[in-house]
Amino acid sequence: MPRVSQDQLDARRKEILAGARTCFARHGYEGATVRRLEEEIGLSRGAIFHHFRDKDSLFLAVAEDDAATMVATVAEHGLVQVMRDLLARAADSGTEPELTGWLGSQLEVSRRLRTDPEFAKRWAARSEAVAEATRERLQRQLEAGVLRADVPIGVLAQFLELAYDGLVLHLATGRPVQDLEAVLDLVEAVVRRS
Amino acid sequence: MPRVSQDQLDARRKEILAGARTCFARHGYEGATVRRLEEEIGLSRGAIFHHFRDKDSLFLAVAEDDAATMVATVAEHGLVQVMRDLLARAADSGTEPELTGWLGSQLEVSRRLRTDPEFAKRWAARSEAVAEATRERLQRQLEAGVLRADVPIGVLAQFLELAYDGLVLHLATGRPVQDLEAVLDLVEAVVRRS
Repeated sequence: MPRVSQDQLDARRKEILAGARTCFARHGYEGATVRRLEEEIGLSRGAIFHHFRDKDSLFLAVAEDDAATMVATVAEHGLVQVMRDLLARAADSGTEPELTGWLGSQLEVSRRLRTDPEFAKRWAARSEAVAEATRERLQRQLEAGVLRADVPIGVLAQFLELAYDGLVLHLATGRPVQDLEAVLDLVEAVVRRS
Repeated sequence: MPRVSQDQLDARRKEILAGARTCFARHGYEGATVRRLEEEIGLSRGAIFHHFRDKDSLFLAVAEDDAATMVATVAEHGLVQVMRDLLARAADSGTEPELTGWLGSQLEVSRRLRTDPEFAKRWAARSEAVAEATRERLQRQLEAGVLRADVPIGVLAQFLELAYDGLVLHLATGRPVQDLEAVLDLVEAVVRRS
């Protein structure tokens, strides 16, 4: 067998993840069949599943990448900014079918989360990373004196996560964007020191 | 043909709805197959679909009933109370598999909402009734002087709906209930006059 360097393996893994991301975003979790994954990635199922155990693992790897990006944005700009970005993309979604697919995926995995404890455990690690980043940022804001101090940070973090979840569900069900920008202003004001 | 009175028709309709509600709540939207609906309702598919055009119509009729109950609670106690009730049921959900099914249904219809404009239109009417009831209650609270006056009612109503959606998604994905009670206290405080 030819020797394959770690760099080559990493590059191939990255290539698979990029194609898988597009496919999940375009067709949702359920709609991303193995055949469609093959087409989008440009590799056979054998090659794909040599690197990722199964479709779940592939989806979770994409979700982990998403979570890492989200953690970085949360750390730098906060969860409210993540919501604002999401809203801006949704307001302009005529040009971006990927967002619709991504939103759909977020809801479609919910069924698996309810019925598959092993999947739920792996997914939870990803959510916890975002929650942790949110708490850390709030802690820094508290120390900088811009955060309200009368409500525990854990509660404020969960409040922001609740708003984020609400935004995902709202947008995923295709409801109008309307006053949501003003709602996010309100959400932001809640956690700030008045 | 024997003459069937309107009362008999109404009673039969009610009976079908009750069985369908249990079935949807227990198995979710997708899991409530026609066979399971027959078993739960105790009538043949012919009898069921004599009263309701199809499974969608049956589901929407149940959802409409739910919305009517929710509108009544919102009008009397507010949307925050609806959230508190939901949270209390979820905290005690070991004893109530119906809640899990109901939460699941809420997310599962989201796919149909994205892909079926006709279904989305019928569903929207139901959401609008709740939104309307929320705005009306907030208006009354404003007049009673207990609501904050610096943010438009439409924005406050959408803020509460965002929190409600967030709670549904949070609970539907089986995440821990933790500090959610404190989060709802915070949500309530946001709309009140400080």
